[in-house]
Amino acid sequence: MKEATIVGAGLVGSLWAVYLTKAGYNVTIFEARDDIRKADISAGKSINLALSNRGWKALETVGAAEEVRKIAIPMYGRMMHDLEGNLTFQPYGKENEAIYSTSRGDLNAILMTAAENTGKAKILYNHQCIDINLQTNELTFLNKKTGEQVHHKTDVIFGCDGAFSAVRYVGLQRTDRFNFSQNFIADGYREILLPANEDGTHKLDKNALHIWPRGRFMLIALPNEDGSYTCTLFMPHEGGENAFDKVNTREEVDAFFKSTFPDFYALMPQIADEWDNHPLSSLAIMRSYPWHHHKTVLMGDAAHATVPFYGQGMNAGFEDCTVLWELMQKHNENWEAVFEEYSATRKPDGDALQDLSLYNYLVMRDYVADPMFLLRKKIEAKFSTLYPNKWMPLYSQVTFSDIRYSVAHKQGEVQNQVMDEVMAIPGIEEKWDSQEVIDKILSLV
Amino acid sequence: MKEATIVGAGLVGSLWAVYLTKAGYNVTIFEARDDIRKADISAGKSINLALSNRGWKALETVGAAEEVRKIAIPMYGRMMHDLEGNLTFQPYGKENEAIYSTSRGDLNAILMTAAENTGKAKILYNHQCIDINLQTNELTFLNKKTGEQVHHKTDVIFGCDGAFSAVRYVGLQRTDRFNFSQNFIADGYREILLPANEDGTHKLDKNALHIWPRGRFMLIALPNEDGSYTCTLFMPHEGGENAFDKVNTREEVDAFFKSTFPDFYALMPQIADEWDNHPLSSLAIMRSYPWHHHKTVLMGDAAHATVPFYGQGMNAGFEDCTVLWELMQKHNENWEAVFEEYSATRKPDGDALQDLSLYNYLVMRDYVADPMFLLRKKIEAKFSTLYPNKWMPLYSQVTFSDIRYSVAHKQGEVQNQVMDEVMAIPGIEEKWDSQEVIDKILSLV
Repeated sequence: MKEATIVGAGLVGSLWAVYLTKAGYNVTIFEARDDIRKADISAGKSINLALSNRGWKALETVGAAEEVRKIAIPMYGRMMHDLEGNLTFQPYGKENEAIYSTSRGDLNAILMTAAENTGKAKILYNHQCIDINLQTNELTFLNKKTGEQVHHKTDVIFGCDGAFSAVRYVGLQRTDRFNFSQNFIADGYREILLPANEDGTHKLDKNALHIWPRGRFMLIALPNEDGSYTCTLFMPHEGGENAFDKVNTREEVDAFFKSTFPDFYALMPQIADEWDNHPLSSLAIMRSYPWHHHKTVLMGDAAHATVPFYGQGMNAGFEDCTVLWELMQKHNENWEAVFEEYSATRKPDGDALQDLSLYNYLVMRDYVADPMFLLRKKIEAKFSTLYPNKWMPLYSQVTFSDIRYSVAHKQGEVQNQVMDEVMAIPGIEEKWDSQEVIDKILSLV
Repeated sequence: MKEATIVGAGLVGSLWAVYLTKAGYNVTIFEARDDIRKADISAGKSINLALSNRGWKALETVGAAEEVRKIAIPMYGRMMHDLEGNLTFQPYGKENEAIYSTSRGDLNAILMTAAENTGKAKILYNHQCIDINLQTNELTFLNKKTGEQVHHKTDVIFGCDGAFSAVRYVGLQRTDRFNFSQNFIADGYREILLPANEDGTHKLDKNALHIWPRGRFMLIALPNEDGSYTCTLFMPHEGGENAFDKVNTREEVDAFFKSTFPDFYALMPQIADEWDNHPLSSLAIMRSYPWHHHKTVLMGDAAHATVPFYGQGMNAGFEDCTVLWELMQKHNENWEAVFEEYSATRKPDGDALQDLSLYNYLVMRDYVADPMFLLRKKIEAKFSTLYPNKWMPLYSQVTFSDIRYSVAHKQGEVQNQVMDEVMAIPGIEEKWDSQEVIDKILSLV
């Protein structure tokens, strides 16, 4: 019987377990925390996520998409809130194209149960990975309930244990020639729960991702099924006028929200009471290479943790499953060959997604408040509708396709150059809808 | 009584212990290995080093310079060996300016003994640091002889435990917002011991650092006191014609040395027999920030490990002692203030040294074989002699001064631009010694 071990029963680990059982593996998942189906989800992690094409594709392969669809709320575009409370809507893609706000906890529970329901995967909780022998595939765990050390030998090891991966810290990082970096950005985030109306309805348009873009910082809100919104404030930790180190007392919180997010403050005047309910958290880009050593491999955030601004962290992790699954067939489960090709070919996509994620922070917090940026995107959308084979907007490539992130990144840069020229046409604001503009783009692509 | 703990009894840890005892501290040093004074120095580490100005300065402050001078061999310049065995000498600086080839083991032994001789520092061996509580200054060690865990509480912690620092891995890397990267370069190295002549004399000019520059790779040799040379071959691990993965069998070793280093091969025809005496090792740049957390701090390679091509790794670590010592006086041993300023002000110097070290690999393996590069340096040296207040060559700033590495790096870039213009003067090879060239430089600086 083939034995596989997964470290981490999060989103990627639970999903990947289902894949492995389909290939006939007995799977043991070791999870450092308690069963989230029985406990509160740990603080500091975003409690909802935006599921998009790459995520759905991986869920469909193992038949989990249908159940997830029941808990997913489509968001068809961004709704920008300016300082006067004026709203501007920007669609994400074509009609009916949406990203889906999904509860992290509920989605994780569905996937854990799906793994267990295969009858071939079991999850052990409160097992913290403290050592790995990458030559012999032996793992050592600390049972946090009993204090005992648990030794486990296996055929193949999947590190799906997130940005602060133990598999990476105690395993791969100690191997020769393993490149690694963890770089925290200057900004942190704090979550805020905007409650539902008393009748359970949503206080904002439910089918949009709401953004209060303020240049150097921003507030966003994603809908939850119960009528509430999970809101997140992204802002520098310190330095400048608007930074987390300036917003501490009740008075400071009140004054900050009243002056910078007045329409949000009107919806949630009790914000100062709720401020400390969620911790101030940090954001990092983590790069590593190679993603494997012998028969141990990193997946998802353990390999390529990114900042959340493209909403692709989970989707990229799920796509890792798609990629590994295809390579398993190609190499007939010769794991070292599978991992070799996975590391080499998927790494540029992890890097590209990280670069794209950093860039999209600028888009969300700043550019979407600029009418010229929105016009630019409108021109792109029009051209793309007329000539779908010549142009897919970058956001659509990333979110509504499975074009490799590295390819999307490069194509996006080419598109940017074209659009720089288009936006330089004198009077573009008046003639954006004209044939002249279309001809200009045609001449450039 | 003030209690300080140092992790690592290497060069920096042993030296820093002497400093701390001067300030009235009781010092405990925990070393993961055995006492090197009683055992062979571990393989994989360079067995000799080039001591220069910054190192000497720190040694002098604690009165250790005199004893070290007895085991240090001055090298006044580089001796380049071309394919035909022709020699070219390039002085490092002004007359009498030299870097000093010093045995790592002997130097380390002198410093460990100096620390012990203070009567206030003790060294515990075979103690591997496995955990640190950065809030309470409690360290946990594994006694590798007995298998027991040892707990130790202290006032202040100095991580002097090298590139693969446990203090960093189990301590600082797990703190929020700690930035870190370990990037291995494409090249590795292998040491070779070129024995002395039968009468104990040196086979090459003893007072030079010998280089066989071959473009993409190089061999170097530093003299030892016993007449031997520690030679090091630096070369890509794989890829291309000349790479370590192409040099494995006795025949391959012989053929490689015969064709690329014929004069060296003539001195050491038994090279193929000795090839496996030293392992193939890797080279990495490791960056971290901040270098401290509360009362724990990183020094030397633990903070800023670099590739060895500027011969500054140890010198930079020793200069860390100088910097911390000055900040101790300035902040009256308020360690958190000391470490805050040390992290903020010294970090750019660590980064600059790493950039300089990477650049100097190109100089050593490639540029020094180019007559135009040597001419360029000769012009710089002449101008510097005429106008010492206007020009100190980059190599001298790094090696023979205590100008901050970050300042030297920037000044070096300015000098480079000036010299690009000078070298573009038509007929520079004939007129390099003319007043016209001097005037040109004067007009540019």
